[in-house]
Amino acid sequence: MTILRMSTLFHRTLRDDPNDAEVASHRLLVRSGYIRRAAPGIYTWLPLGWRVLRNVERIVREEMERAGFQEVHFPALLPREPYEATGRWADYGDNLFRLQDRRGADYLLGPTHEEMFTLLVKDIVTSYKDLPVSIFQIQTKYRDEARPRAGLLRGREFVMKDSYSFDIDDDGLTRSYEAHRAAYIRTFERLGLPFVVVAATSGAMGGSASEEFLTPMSAGEDTFVRCPSCGYAANTEAATSAAPHADAHSGAEHPPSQVVNTPDTATIAALVELLNERDDLARADGRAWTAAHTLKNVVVSVRRTDGSFEPLAIGLPGDRELDLHRLAAQMEPAEVATFTDADFTRHPELVKGYIGPGALGSERGVRYLVDPRVAAGTAWVSGADAEGRHAIDLVIGRDVHPDGTIDVAEVRAGDPCPACGHGLDIERGVEMGHIFQLGRKYAEAFDLKVPGPDGKLATLTMGSYGIGVSRAVAAIAETTSDDMGLRWPPEVAPADVHLVAAGKDAAIVEFAEQLAADLAAKGRTVLFDDRTDASAGVKFRDAELVGVPLIVIVGRGLADGVVEVRDRRSGDRLDFATDDVLAQIIAATRR
Amino acid sequence: MTILRMSTLFHRTLRDDPNDAEVASHRLLVRSGYIRRAAPGIYTWLPLGWRVLRNVERIVREEMERAGFQEVHFPALLPREPYEATGRWADYGDNLFRLQDRRGADYLLGPTHEEMFTLLVKDIVTSYKDLPVSIFQIQTKYRDEARPRAGLLRGREFVMKDSYSFDIDDDGLTRSYEAHRAAYIRTFERLGLPFVVVAATSGAMGGSASEEFLTPMSAGEDTFVRCPSCGYAANTEAATSAAPHADAHSGAEHPPSQVVNTPDTATIAALVELLNERDDLARADGRAWTAAHTLKNVVVSVRRTDGSFEPLAIGLPGDRELDLHRLAAQMEPAEVATFTDADFTRHPELVKGYIGPGALGSERGVRYLVDPRVAAGTAWVSGADAEGRHAIDLVIGRDVHPDGTIDVAEVRAGDPCPACGHGLDIERGVEMGHIFQLGRKYAEAFDLKVPGPDGKLATLTMGSYGIGVSRAVAAIAETTSDDMGLRWPPEVAPADVHLVAAGKDAAIVEFAEQLAADLAAKGRTVLFDDRTDASAGVKFRDAELVGVPLIVIVGRGLADGVVEVRDRRSGDRLDFATDDVLAQIIAATRR
Repeated sequence: MTILRMSTLFHRTLRDDPNDAEVASHRLLVRSGYIRRAAPGIYTWLPLGWRVLRNVERIVREEMERAGFQEVHFPALLPREPYEATGRWADYGDNLFRLQDRRGADYLLGPTHEEMFTLLVKDIVTSYKDLPVSIFQIQTKYRDEARPRAGLLRGREFVMKDSYSFDIDDDGLTRSYEAHRAAYIRTFERLGLPFVVVAATSGAMGGSASEEFLTPMSAGEDTFVRCPSCGYAANTEAATSAAPHADAHSGAEHPPSQVVNTPDTATIAALVELLNERDDLARADGRAWTAAHTLKNVVVSVRRTDGSFEPLAIGLPGDRELDLHRLAAQMEPAEVATFTDADFTRHPELVKGYIGPGALGSERGVRYLVDPRVAAGTAWVSGADAEGRHAIDLVIGRDVHPDGTIDVAEVRAGDPCPACGHGLDIERGVEMGHIFQLGRKYAEAFDLKVPGPDGKLATLTMGSYGIGVSRAVAAIAETTSDDMGLRWPPEVAPADVHLVAAGKDAAIVEFAEQLAADLAAKGRTVLFDDRTDASAGVKFRDAELVGVPLIVIVGRGLADGVVEVRDRRSGDRLDFATDDVLAQIIAATRR
Repeated sequence: MTILRMSTLFHRTLRDDPNDAEVASHRLLVRSGYIRRAAPGIYTWLPLGWRVLRNVERIVREEMERAGFQEVHFPALLPREPYEATGRWADYGDNLFRLQDRRGADYLLGPTHEEMFTLLVKDIVTSYKDLPVSIFQIQTKYRDEARPRAGLLRGREFVMKDSYSFDIDDDGLTRSYEAHRAAYIRTFERLGLPFVVVAATSGAMGGSASEEFLTPMSAGEDTFVRCPSCGYAANTEAATSAAPHADAHSGAEHPPSQVVNTPDTATIAALVELLNERDDLARADGRAWTAAHTLKNVVVSVRRTDGSFEPLAIGLPGDRELDLHRLAAQMEPAEVATFTDADFTRHPELVKGYIGPGALGSERGVRYLVDPRVAAGTAWVSGADAEGRHAIDLVIGRDVHPDGTIDVAEVRAGDPCPACGHGLDIERGVEMGHIFQLGRKYAEAFDLKVPGPDGKLATLTMGSYGIGVSRAVAAIAETTSDDMGLRWPPEVAPADVHLVAAGKDAAIVEFAEQLAADLAAKGRTVLFDDRTDASAGVKFRDAELVGVPLIVIVGRGLADGVVEVRDRRSGDRLDFATDDVLAQIIAATRR
């Protein structure tokens, strides 16, 4: 179909890594001449990179269309009003690029388009008979990341596919969600991108069922747990803890709780050390005290969406840290802030280092939620709300009455799987896709109702589904490359064949030219290294770096009637007879 | 290939025109469900509109690639620095969307990308051997138009194809320019878009050879002259006047000039009336004085790029108005401002209504340029720089010595063609493409030099080439539609066939379903009106409105063994036998 001649291609490989590249995909995409940085988190696509991005787009589009979803396209420059109506103009904070036009009207560069999709459906859909409908776009989006990093993995201008489904009822939403889930699995499989589907929280969007498609990689910013036994997987923000704790204290037979003097024990470590030094406080079973026996109470300030603040205390086993990301995810749309010295001054009953259940609870003005492991019947050592004093043998449900539970402790490798109890693995990954049941939040905000089968107006329920398209280019590069360079899966590669004319002999040049023409005539895209000012060594190195799946070398072997074919991914090398090589390449590049 | 079922298509036609639509294309694209307004000059594409836009993109891309140009893609969100380096950050004025990121760094939304292309080539190209190179992108661009109007014809967010050529010398630039010119002609022909190639000024870009591809239409904002005899065509801003004027006064034999009292003649009309009333001022040939015999001097203030101002006087035949667009185009990058009362106060020698050549000229501090018709040897009546006084028999070159000529008078229908003398037509059009030889302005600004064949560094010379992609959708709609709706050329239409099942009989539905499947199997895109809740009349009206080139109606005729096929463009209607209709449609939709 196409011959891309490296003698004229707008392309240049670099010998050295760029200074600002932190991850392999970023280094390799720049070095191999696929992308260039235009500003922090903002990139220019060179011809080879642009071909890869368009291949990814094509695959995503084909799978969306195969599933019956319909493509639309919204502007990136959006008026403030719809985002004001849902509160997101403010909620997005610094992540939103805002600007004004010449008349002073406020605009934003769209980070996501829930508002616009909802308004468009309100305009077009007039009856339940028009439903279900799923519409999508593949579009350039903007997010003013605090720390744009890792090249295309976290850009400020990036390409996304976003879809929304609209249904008249919850069953419809479930079906639409499953249709997207299936389309996403097909899409990521075709992209050649490893992925794990993990349970997720729904972020700022609200809603219920929510799953992420994560590609495991060390450069990832997301952490997730995965059970090697049963396959359970969840974003750490959404992971649920197995409760009660495996070595939970039995409570009913416990002695009554008592307050003891524990001077200079404002830290868990100091407290445990003192408990183990004091014979009078020795445990009944004779084993040593550990941090896991203590109940740590952390107080934070919660900023509600109406701007008001309330204190919140969280009780955790003393050997666990509070995971602020998990807490933030659970509290959304409210925000979490540090409990300041001024806050402590307003709450003299909260004694730093010695905060105990006795000062906590809604009836005392401080909502008190505990980790699932702090279950009814378990016994703990905790603060006694006075300097140098702790309570021991505090039994939950007997002595302590929390307002509820909250699952926001750090997750650790080896923690028991909530599904099967096996120890969990913790891995890092990048979010490549997200599907979730958004529900009626936006439909309610914009009064999106249509007559249902019974003639009554019904508010529609929505699903929201995204795929990082430009991010996928980097994720594929990141997960498939090796020390020598990129290694594209065939469907996304910028060409089917990288043909190298390794030598200046007329016979070599002539054979290579004919092979390029024959391959193009058969519908293949050939990246043809026809340069006369590059050595064979340079050409081989560039071919490894650029990463087209099949490298065909017309060189010295030609005199013996053979052409070498290298599989860039497996590393296999085979010599083919000159009169057979065309057929072999065609067979190897068949889709 | 594809069946788009209207029963499930995300689509709705409107019976009434939208309120805010000024031109036919805007009205029809909204009514027929192709686009929706998101904000002034900013539009959302619905599925059918998006298909048309992507068809236009595809055609443009194919023709660029056929010409050997290579596709890249720049960000739309651009850092200020490169635009500061060329002065365009300021020069663009209110037309530029500017914003700041969370760190307070300045950004803009790219209206054109000269700076970015130049910097990228500086990064990639290292030798004259890499040249010539032409690179292009198809991208969303932004311009904060003062009066966004006419729908997609003048939007604030729009899709453009922009290319730049880079050559080592002027001959190379000429060749690159011609290659683009040829590719543009092929592109517009394939788009089915009528066009005229007109001589143009180069606008804010600087540079030399420059031509526009205008599509004639009454809704156009550009006016151009065209000679029906020899084919000369030019944007009115760039049109040159035939000079001297056809009834030019002969000068040598003229009597000496004299100053006469002409009370209350501050306007040309009053002056002409007085001249014709006064026997002592009767013309030698006895014919009446007209405004064309008078020399009107208009003073403006010119703001140089360094911010300083200078006065400029322009001498025109009294029957001509100064065309401010032509003046602005000729003065760029300097700007033209009104000569204010304060300016007149600073120049007491300029007497309003009586300004004459005696007060003008560089040596008197007011640069004086005259219309080409005010040629050496012609004689005029003009102001005498005193209230109620005029000079007659002023001969250019004898009594008046202008600093030069300037061609900025209004152009009129019937003015002689500068090429052949035939009377010119004046038409309105929309700029669909622009090609011009930009030269070395940007290469110099960014020090873009490479070693030439002689080993010496040479500054590259650039060409700049644009096509309005989203604008083309509107221009095609505007020039091809009729009272009943859109009429797409086959290559850009959202479908090949609009198939209407006109009736609910099982036989009709069954035949239509089979025909849709057969057409799709043959690679055709079928817009299939399979709705069960729309009457045949509504379906016919929608088919006319939506404008797919071939409308196939399976209806009552089926009982007689015939299917009706309508050509939406010619209006032709033909009945085909049911066993022949598939072959006929396949033949009619062959590309």
